[in-house]
Amino acid sequence: MRVVLLAGGGGGARFARGLHDVLAPGELTVIGNVGDDVEVLGLHVSPDLDSLLYALSGLIDEERGWGRTGETWNALESAAAWGGEGWFRLGDRDLGLHLVRSQQLRRGRRLSEITAELVGRVGLEVLLLPATDDRVRTHVVTPAGVFRFQEWFVGRTHRDEVDGVEYSGSESASPAPGVLHAIADADAILVAPSNPYLSIEPILAVREIRKALEARTVRCVAVSPLVRGAAVTGPLDRMLSRMAGGTTPRHVLDRYGGLVDVLVVDESDAPATPEADLVPARTLMRDRDAARRLAEVVLEVACA
Amino acid sequence: MRVVLLAGGGGGARFARGLHDVLAPGELTVIGNVGDDVEVLGLHVSPDLDSLLYALSGLIDEERGWGRTGETWNALESAAAWGGEGWFRLGDRDLGLHLVRSQQLRRGRRLSEITAELVGRVGLEVLLLPATDDRVRTHVVTPAGVFRFQEWFVGRTHRDEVDGVEYSGSESASPAPGVLHAIADADAILVAPSNPYLSIEPILAVREIRKALEARTVRCVAVSPLVRGAAVTGPLDRMLSRMAGGTTPRHVLDRYGGLVDVLVVDESDAPATPEADLVPARTLMRDRDAARRLAEVVLEVACA
Repeated sequence: MRVVLLAGGGGGARFARGLHDVLAPGELTVIGNVGDDVEVLGLHVSPDLDSLLYALSGLIDEERGWGRTGETWNALESAAAWGGEGWFRLGDRDLGLHLVRSQQLRRGRRLSEITAELVGRVGLEVLLLPATDDRVRTHVVTPAGVFRFQEWFVGRTHRDEVDGVEYSGSESASPAPGVLHAIADADAILVAPSNPYLSIEPILAVREIRKALEARTVRCVAVSPLVRGAAVTGPLDRMLSRMAGGTTPRHVLDRYGGLVDVLVVDESDAPATPEADLVPARTLMRDRDAARRLAEVVLEVACA
Repeated sequence: MRVVLLAGGGGGARFARGLHDVLAPGELTVIGNVGDDVEVLGLHVSPDLDSLLYALSGLIDEERGWGRTGETWNALESAAAWGGEGWFRLGDRDLGLHLVRSQQLRRGRRLSEITAELVGRVGLEVLLLPATDDRVRTHVVTPAGVFRFQEWFVGRTHRDEVDGVEYSGSESASPAPGVLHAIADADAILVAPSNPYLSIEPILAVREIRKALEARTVRCVAVSPLVRGAAVTGPLDRMLSRMAGGTTPRHVLDRYGGLVDVLVVDESDAPATPEADLVPARTLMRDRDAARRLAEVVLEVACA
């Protein structure tokens, strides 16, 4: 069975690990969002790819939900004391990865090649692919101005309301090697419980990826990132209310404009009268077991 | 009183701190060696400038003699696990500095500007100048081949005998802004107890610096880095024996070819019959007090 998952960090990474626990080695391909990528202290940081890598390999700090377990923060503290930027939290162990990747990128290697090597280093039999090797960057349009994603999300603690989201560079971006093949070959296509605007749409904004998904002959199943109409973390509920007019499962499903056949929603959000394209399940991934159970349900729906 | 010190790391940094303790704020200019500079994990590292900065500001790890006190090593360990180079030891706090400096260099700023800013950050009233903003790199010629300095010193733990030392790039290098002015304006010029081949000659290899020193009208006093004819640390004694034929004070003084008027030597190396250009003192800087006492003696000799 070949499964393709479109995912951001956070919930996407938790769900990816659930799938990884359930599937056989080599069955999972994860296409990760790179719209959040950011240059910090001269280093290229890919927060979503890293959350996926750390979650899949068990290196992630479970409580924090991002970065590495057993982390220290001395380099960033020192950099800030020497006048460097300290707004984006990078732990020392995390930095080791950014140093290696940035050095490779500067030597002209592609993000997808480097990511594959990193995955190999931790012995994972997963294909982890950035959506694109090209530069796609998410910008949010707010009443206070247009901000680069991390500037708004971290720098301004996403306090500004969002009127629109743009994926700069997406018009001319090509899918990373392996992405189209994985989609064409998949027995099921899944969309993680990630923020549609911020994590999934930057992937779909790559024209050829969208086309490949439109041409699918298998089911595409997404998991709603909302529970009781609210975001588990992050600003999605506020964004949906303002830009889409509500936070029901239908509002989530509509974001995907026909690319998703079934939305798995939390039991708390299940419609009173059953609807064919909204399947209730327990979507809150409190721990690894819960993520595994959710993965099983989603795979069942996908293969039904 | 305006004092100029030519220095490498290690003994140079200890002696610089001794001088700094003795002189009034603003009286000391240190011209630091950059021949040891190296790119590690894509970062520009200036080991001698950093040792000087850390020693002068009290951040240095006294026991180790380099790097920062209270250091951790998680980023490097992580980088190595991800396939990055781990041969050059960089602590996490130390990395913070390299990140900031490398980012500034990539933005086109000069090493001398950046260094001045770092010195300002720790509130030091010292002029710390790289000998040059241009790329000068020390290479050692050994029976096993020619090596870049750090490759030989750290990578091969300087086990190969040295037949020659080259300062690549020095022919076309210009002194950093402020260097010639500091030398021309100095009331005394001092050379730290650093390895002549590896720490001082890369400075002197910059033609205009050598010329400015030749044109001096004040005394130039060096401190011998040998005690009982042996190097306190490092390979100098082996280098001198092989390339200069011995390790007496005279062999050290000869390395400077007329640029040094008086060599302060350890009491244990004092010639049996007094010689005008060899002044005995206690040169071993066991602690900060010893460094201060040595600085006092050297300043006295310089102003005699």
